[in-house]
Amino acid sequence: MAVDQEDFTYRGRLVHLVHTRQFTRRLAEDIFDVADRARRLNTSRPGSAYLKESLVGRLALLYFVQPSTRTFLSFHAAASLLGMSTAEVRSREISSEMKGESALDSVRTFAMYHDLIIIRYPEPGFSEQCARFFLDNDLRRHVINGGSGKDDHPTQALLDLYTLHREFYSRGGIDGKRILLVGDLARGRAARSLLQLLARYEGVRLDLVSPPQVKLGDDMMSLSRKAFEDVRESEHIEDFLQDADAVYMTRVQSEYDPHIEVPESAIDSYGLTPARVATLKADAVIMHPLPRRSEIPTILDRDPRSRYWDQVENGMWARVALIAHILGSDSRIMSA
Amino acid sequence: MAVDQEDFTYRGRLVHLVHTRQFTRRLAEDIFDVADRARRLNTSRPGSAYLKESLVGRLALLYFVQPSTRTFLSFHAAASLLGMSTAEVRSREISSEMKGESALDSVRTFAMYHDLIIIRYPEPGFSEQCARFFLDNDLRRHVINGGSGKDDHPTQALLDLYTLHREFYSRGGIDGKRILLVGDLARGRAARSLLQLLARYEGVRLDLVSPPQVKLGDDMMSLSRKAFEDVRESEHIEDFLQDADAVYMTRVQSEYDPHIEVPESAIDSYGLTPARVATLKADAVIMHPLPRRSEIPTILDRDPRSRYWDQVENGMWARVALIAHILGSDSRIMSA
Amino acid sequence: MAVDQEDFTYRGRLVHLVHTRQFTRRLAEDIFDVADRARRLNTSRPGSAYLKESLVGRLALLYFVQPSTRTFLSFHAAASLLGMSTAEVRSREISSEMKGESALDSVRTFAMYHDLIIIRYPEPGFSEQCARFFLDNDLRRHVINGGSGKDDHPTQALLDLYTLHREFYSRGGIDGKRILLVGDLARGRAARSLLQLLARYEGVRLDLVSPPQVKLGDDMMSLSRKAFEDVRESEHIEDFLQDADAVYMTRVQSEYDPHIEVPESAIDSYGLTPARVATLKADAVIMHPLPRRSEIPTILDRDPRSRYWDQVENGMWARVALIAHILGSDSRIMSA
Repeated sequence: MAVDQEDFTYRGRLVHLVHTRQFTRRLAEDIFDVADRARRLNTSRPGSAYLKESLVGRLALLYFVQPSTRTFLSFHAAASLLGMSTAEVRSREISSEMKGESALDSVRTFAMYHDLIIIRYPEPGFSEQCARFFLDNDLRRHVINGGSGKDDHPTQALLDLYTLHREFYSRGGIDGKRILLVGDLARGRAARSLLQLLARYEGVRLDLVSPPQVKLGDDMMSLSRKAFEDVRESEHIEDFLQDADAVYMTRVQSEYDPHIEVPESAIDSYGLTPARVATLKADAVIMHPLPRRSEIPTILDRDPRSRYWDQVENGMWARVALIAHILGSDSRIMSA
Repeated sequence: MAVDQEDFTYRGRLVHLVHTRQFTRRLAEDIFDVADRARRLNTSRPGSAYLKESLVGRLALLYFVQPSTRTFLSFHAAASLLGMSTAEVRSREISSEMKGESALDSVRTFAMYHDLIIIRYPEPGFSEQCARFFLDNDLRRHVINGGSGKDDHPTQALLDLYTLHREFYSRGGIDGKRILLVGDLARGRAARSLLQLLARYEGVRLDLVSPPQVKLGDDMMSLSRKAFEDVRESEHIEDFLQDADAVYMTRVQSEYDPHIEVPESAIDSYGLTPARVATLKADAVIMHPLPRRSEIPTILDRDPRSRYWDQVENGMWARVALIAHILGSDSRIMSA
Repeated sequence: MAVDQEDFTYRGRLVHLVHTRQFTRRLAEDIFDVADRARRLNTSRPGSAYLKESLVGRLALLYFVQPSTRTFLSFHAAASLLGMSTAEVRSREISSEMKGESALDSVRTFAMYHDLIIIRYPEPGFSEQCARFFLDNDLRRHVINGGSGKDDHPTQALLDLYTLHREFYSRGGIDGKRILLVGDLARGRAARSLLQLLARYEGVRLDLVSPPQVKLGDDMMSLSRKAFEDVRESEHIEDFLQDADAVYMTRVQSEYDPHIEVPESAIDSYGLTPARVATLKADAVIMHPLPRRSEIPTILDRDPRSRYWDQVENGMWARVALIAHILGSDSRIMSA
C-alpha cells in the first residue's frame, strides 16, 4: 500500500492520525460533514441501528496507559456508536512487559486482534513510532493519537475546530473571525494545536491573553504572525473581550511543569466573571477544553454563549466521524 | 420537561431512580411484567436479537467508584442484554480530578457521552445530587442509584420484591404473607429497604430475629408497627421459623461499622441449619441478598426452598426491566 | 444432563474446556474447520454481521485474576466477533471476598449473569473445580481454562496445533513431520501442552534442544518416547535445525521458578540468528508462543518462514471456533 510517509494518507484518506497538521481544511470539513450526519442519524432507532452496522466485526483497542478518563470515554462512546467492539489496556504493568517483551512487540500483538489502536502514552512520539512500524511491516491496522503527555492532541484540535465550524456556519464560517485565546498558552497543548488548524482559514484575527509566566512561545508567536491577519497580546482580558467572536479559555496546567508557578492573582486577571462577560458580543461564543478550574465559574454555564459543554459532545461526534473516515465507512454514513 | 422534583417521575415514568421509596406497588409490578417478558424473550435467538435492539445506540456508564463486583456485573449484563454499549469508571483517582475538576463537572462530562449513568459512590446522597443537577440543567440523561455506602440500595429492594412476587404469584401474591427477617437489621440496608416495599402490600405480617447488638432501629420499628398487620421480635430463630412464608436472611455487616462487635455465638443463634430448616413449611422460601457467611451453610443450596441464587438472576432481569422503563423501551418489549 | 465427568463432554461436544487432553484429533480438526470458516466470513460486512449474530444475547465473563493482557485480549476479541457481550473481573481484591464470601460462591454469582466464564487464576486446578461445581449443581454454564499459573494452557496448545495444521494442510498434514522444540522445556507449559496434542498424530518425529537446567522432564520424556516415531535430544540447536519441518522456540520462563538460573550464554547456544536460520529448509516454519526475549531477534520477523505473528492471529480464530463449539453455534457458522 503506497501510503504517504509524511502525511500517513492513502489516496487522500488518513491511514493513521498522529499529528494535528495532518488535517487540511478540506479533510477537516469532510469529517465535520460526516459528524453532522452521524449525530442526526442517531436521533432515531433505525438511524442508530444503521450507524451501528458501520463497523460491525471491527475491533478497537483503547491503549490508554496514561490516565485520561474523559478522552477515553469519548473515544469509547464513538467506537461503540459505530458498532465496533472495544477493548482497553490501561496499565503498562502487564505480564508481557514483565516477561521482557518490547513495547513494539506488545503493540504488534494488540494489532493482530484489533483494526484500530487509539493510543495515549506518557512518552511523546509513541503514536508516530507505532504508525511507522505498521507501515514498515505492512500491517493494515490504524493508529489514532489520543493525546500523549505534552505532545500533540489532534482530536482535541479537531473538536475545537468543529465547534467553531458549527457556530459560525451560518455566519460566514471561520474566515475573518476574531479569536481570543486566554490562559496557559505556553504549555496548554489544546490552544497551540487549535492555532495550527485556525491557520488554514483566511483572515482570522488572533488575540492572546496570558499571565507573563505562560505566554505563547516565540516559535508559535512567529508562526502566528505569518498565519493570521492581526495578532495582539495583553495580560488583561478586558483589553480584547469586547472584540471577540470566540473566547477560548484554558486553565493553568501545573501538572506538566510544576516548577513554573502562576500565582492565583494572575488567574484573577484573566478569568471570566459575569461582569467581564457582560462586555462580550451577544453572538460570541465561550469555549474551554475542560477540565476547568476557577477561570470559568459555574454560574456562566447558563450563559447562552457558553459552548464548553457542547464541545464535549462535539468531541464524541468528531471522533465518530474520524474513525469512520479512517476505517472507510464514511461514505456509507453520508449516503444514509 | 416538567419532572416531579420529589419522585423524579415524568407522566408516571421514572426519570431517575434514587430512592427505594420511589417504587409504588403499581410501578414495581409493571416493571416485574417487563422483567418476566424480557427473560422469556431471551430464551430464543430471535427473541434475544429483538431484546438487543431495544436500546441500540444508547450508552450506559457504570460509575462505580465504590467497589462492588456483583452489582456491577448485574447492571453490566442487564444493559448489554438491551443492546446498550457500556463503559465503566471504577476509580476516582483519575486525571481530571487531579487537575482540579469538581465532581459535578466530571459527571456532567460523563453525561455528554452517555444516556444513563449508574452510580455507586462512597458518599451518601451523591446519586440524588446528580439527579437534581441533571434536572436543574435540563440535561436529558438518567441516573440509577446502584447502592452507595450505608445509603439506600433501591435495585436490591426491587429484586427482593420481584423474587417474592414470583414465588407467591400463584398463591395469592404477597398480601397477607408472613415474612421473617433475620440477622443484621440495624445496618443491613437490604432488609431495611425491603421493608419499605413490603409496606405497600396488604396484611403482611412481620417477624424479626437479630442479635441484640444489631436489632432493627427504633425509627424503622415504629414505621413497621404502622405498616404491618403484626410485628413480632425475638433473638431466637426457632420462635418464628415454622410460621414463615419467606425467611430473609442477612449477614452481620461488620465492614460498615466495625466498632459494633457481634460474637460468633450470636450468629449461631440465628443461622440456618438442616435441623432448623426441617421445621420450615414445605412451600416457604429462603432468601439472602448475598454475599453470605456462615448463616446459610452451602448444604442448604440444594434445599428446594432455597431461592438466594434465583434472587441473583432475578436481580439481573429486574435491572433489565428498570433500565427499559427509565429509557422508554418497556412498551416495545411488552408488545413483542 | 449426562455429561461425561472425565472429558467434560456431552454427545461428543465439549461442555467445559479444562485440559489440553480433552482435544481428540477429530475434535481439534472440527474446531479448525470452524475457525477457517469464521475468518473467511469476517472478510465481508455481511459475513461479519452473520458471525456477530451467532451468540447474540449471550454473555461472557473474563475472570482473569492472574494478569495476562495478550490472552485476555484474544478471548475478548473472539467473544466479541461472535456477538457476545463481555464483562471482566481482573482483581480478586473485590468487595465480596472482603465480606467473607467463598471463591465458589463468587463464581456461582458470576455464572448467574454469564453463559461462559473464561478463567485465568493463580492457583492450579481452579478451572476444573469450577467445571465440576457447575456439573454437580446442574448449572448450565460453561468454563474455559484461559491458562492458570504453571498449569495447563489448553487454548495455547490448540492455536499452536492449528498453526501447524494450516501450514502442513497442503503438504500431507502433521503426520510424519519432524518438529524441533527449543528452549525452556522444563517449565514452559506451551511446549509441553503442544506435545500432548502432537501425540495424536502418526509418525511425528521429535527433536529437543534446551539448556541443561531446563530440559524436558523425565515424565514427559518417557511419554514422548512412546508417542513419537523418533526422539532426539541435544544442547546445540545446530544439530537439528537442518532437519526440521517446524521449529518451536520458547523463552526461558524465569518468572515461574526464579531459583533456577539459566545463564545468558545458554540462550546464545539455542537462540535463532540469521546464520543459523540459513541452514533451515525453505518450507520449514518458525514458531514461538510469545512473548519472546532474545531467542528470536526482530530481524527474523521478515523471514518468510516466521509464523509467530500468524500464531497470534490464529489464536484469536481458534478461540472463536472453540467458543462457538462449546456454546453450540458452530454448525450455524459451518452452514453459512
